[in-house]
Amino acid sequence: MSAPAPGAGTRRLHAWAYLSRVAEPPAAGVARLVEELGVEEAAAAIRTRVVPPAHRGVLRSTAARCETDCAADDLVTIDRLGGRLVTPDDDEWPGWALHALDTADTAARGGPPLALWVRGPAHLADLADGAVAVVGSRAATAYGTRMASTVAAGAVERGRAVVSGGAYGIDGAAHRRALADAGSTIAVLACGLDIDYPTDHGALFAEIARTGAVVSEYAPGTTAARHRFLARNRLVVALSAAVVVVEAGRRSGANNTAAWARIVGRPLGAVPGPATSAMSVGCHALIADGYAQLVDGAAAVERLIAPDGGGDSANPRTTVDDLDPVVARVREAIPAAGRAGVAEIAFSAGVDAGTTRSALATLDMLGLVDGDGSGWALARTRPARAGEGGAGQRRLL
Amino acid sequence: MSAPAPGAGTRRLHAWAYLSRVAEPPAAGVARLVEELGVEEAAAAIRTRVVPPAHRGVLRSTAARCETDCAADDLVTIDRLGGRLVTPDDDEWPGWALHALDTADTAARGGPPLALWVRGPAHLADLADGAVAVVGSRAATAYGTRMASTVAAGAVERGRAVVSGGAYGIDGAAHRRALADAGSTIAVLACGLDIDYPTDHGALFAEIARTGAVVSEYAPGTTAARHRFLARNRLVVALSAAVVVVEAGRRSGANNTAAWARIVGRPLGAVPGPATSAMSVGCHALIADGYAQLVDGAAAVERLIAPDGGGDSANPRTTVDDLDPVVARVREAIPAAGRAGVAEIAFSAGVDAGTTRSALATLDMLGLVDGDGSGWALARTRPARAGEGGAGQRRLL
Repeated sequence: MSAPAPGAGTRRLHAWAYLSRVAEPPAAGVARLVEELGVEEAAAAIRTRVVPPAHRGVLRSTAARCETDCAADDLVTIDRLGGRLVTPDDDEWPGWALHALDTADTAARGGPPLALWVRGPAHLADLADGAVAVVGSRAATAYGTRMASTVAAGAVERGRAVVSGGAYGIDGAAHRRALADAGSTIAVLACGLDIDYPTDHGALFAEIARTGAVVSEYAPGTTAARHRFLARNRLVVALSAAVVVVEAGRRSGANNTAAWARIVGRPLGAVPGPATSAMSVGCHALIADGYAQLVDGAAAVERLIAPDGGGDSANPRTTVDDLDPVVARVREAIPAAGRAGVAEIAFSAGVDAGTTRSALATLDMLGLVDGDGSGWALARTRPARAGEGGAGQRRLL
Repeated sequence: MSAPAPGAGTRRLHAWAYLSRVAEPPAAGVARLVEELGVEEAAAAIRTRVVPPAHRGVLRSTAARCETDCAADDLVTIDRLGGRLVTPDDDEWPGWALHALDTADTAARGGPPLALWVRGPAHLADLADGAVAVVGSRAATAYGTRMASTVAAGAVERGRAVVSGGAYGIDGAAHRRALADAGSTIAVLACGLDIDYPTDHGALFAEIARTGAVVSEYAPGTTAARHRFLARNRLVVALSAAVVVVEAGRRSGANNTAAWARIVGRPLGAVPGPATSAMSVGCHALIADGYAQLVDGAAAVERLIAPDGGGDSANPRTTVDDLDPVVARVREAIPAAGRAGVAEIAFSAGVDAGTTRSALATLDMLGLVDGDGSGWALARTRPARAGEGGAGQRRLL
């Protein structure tokens, strides 16, 4: 209100800032009003309490805060933090990513944010493109933080940003590993960016803001609250290409993030753990109930995003495990040491001599046996076995 | 050959004993011949090498062993072991369980056994009815043996027998827990019952034979071989109502058992473990590829067998997690200590005063808040939260 007379762009930015605080996000009604009237007109309508009849609901959702306009102060605050208010007017607005929140299924539960308060040099839309969200319990175990770190490292290795909620435990481990590996990471907070929550993650947020992005839809000064964590979770999901739950207890907030992933349509992975660990109960339930795909490492996470991609294309090799059952049985009948004749092998295998001879020929061709005048022996060196090092489908029978 | 002149029943049993060794199991051709000619006639036909034209394949599969008739000796051997040869003639023949091996899908890969060599007092068909197969790696970890024990204990607690392969590691842990809990257990071996394989499981097999059953389709004297382990796995599967893989490396034989479970149509569960454990790789792959259901304990195993059974029927309770989002938000806006007025709560929650009042009334009704002349406070004692102790579907959003 006491700000210097603003230019057109600044007036617009002030309107976004005003709207970002005037209703508690997610503010679908305000978003619809902006869509219909334009941003400055929507702000004016709310401020003056004169809205089109179809939008009267907005009067209710903005009643408590409509007279409190801190837009100018908020913009000063974010500037002082080295940040900015990113709006749909900006090139870096991650409109494509956030569009997932604007479907029939998702809009009712919490549509896209009106604008995002951002600290950090990264281009937000670029960062979110193909990013991996790594979420989980605040009370993570050593195993959980290790797996969070593994998943984050895998994402960074593939040039993907790591998105998380900046909390203790899994979130912190994921952010830290991304930073340690010189990767990009996005922390989405459930409070204003001038508030460090949790308090002793202030240094972590500052470090993230040096290379990545610390993001919130809440205006400066907004404190963290349970419903804000839940609303925040939808942004973690929207700003990523896949979501991985690393550890989650039965009632973990990560289950809410998982639900968002389903609704928003992001592939959802969950990392298994010991069935004896309370911190893996949530992950196991997500997998068992068919909500999440089991992911046991970075490669599995990558398959979530690009199911047919990357290096796993089969290179079939004939192996001991691929043998015809009768041929395999003949091979088994060959003594481990020394040599045996066809009759002896046939008896031990329980197949007739003709079949045994033909099986031995097959095995010879595959380099699995070694025949000479005194009989047949197993070949000294075996060809490589299927599945070694590969992560494709295994042959089971 | 040198046995005393046998009566009709004994002659029949001798024929079964002869046939159980004359071809390497699974001997589908011999089984078909028995079906067409009857057991004694089939034995005579193979011995004399005169079979109906449609069954000429049997001549091949029995060529190596047709002249070696150890039936009488084998029956003496099994008698000396306190065992018996169980055949389709017997009341305890688990025909219903083994029928699963006699379908279009399974018969080609290995049909039912012709007969089963059995040690132990149990009625085999009764024991197999509703049994749980617990299988896994021989090189099990401490975690794996613990989970095998947990699953076995859960089966015993529900009056189910535990079926396994008598091997080191997971198998042994499952058998031992069943015995320790005075439950029934079946060990299916890949060798003759006069051979203890592995050698130092002799005492374990003897103990199983005191109350349960040690079973093999291999005549006495038959040694263990790789293809016999694979054939044995199909019997472990057939003699159970559900199969649980507890730990399995990438190339574990348990994967073959899992494949049998799929083919035979038995529900298949796999126990998750640390993603960092090589002994859980096979289980994770089975779950990730959709072959197995994740099971994290005895209750989950029970659900494999009786998906709609037992005690999990919802008893819905309204909880903090079930609240309407706006009501939840109003609740969050109430200070943790002290009291707040409607206006203050409305501002903090970002909703108008009317909505706040109505939400407070709802919360009051649920016993979640406590209002008096000076304002609203959170109720001291909360109702129980959903999901505590229950294993049903969780509410995610």
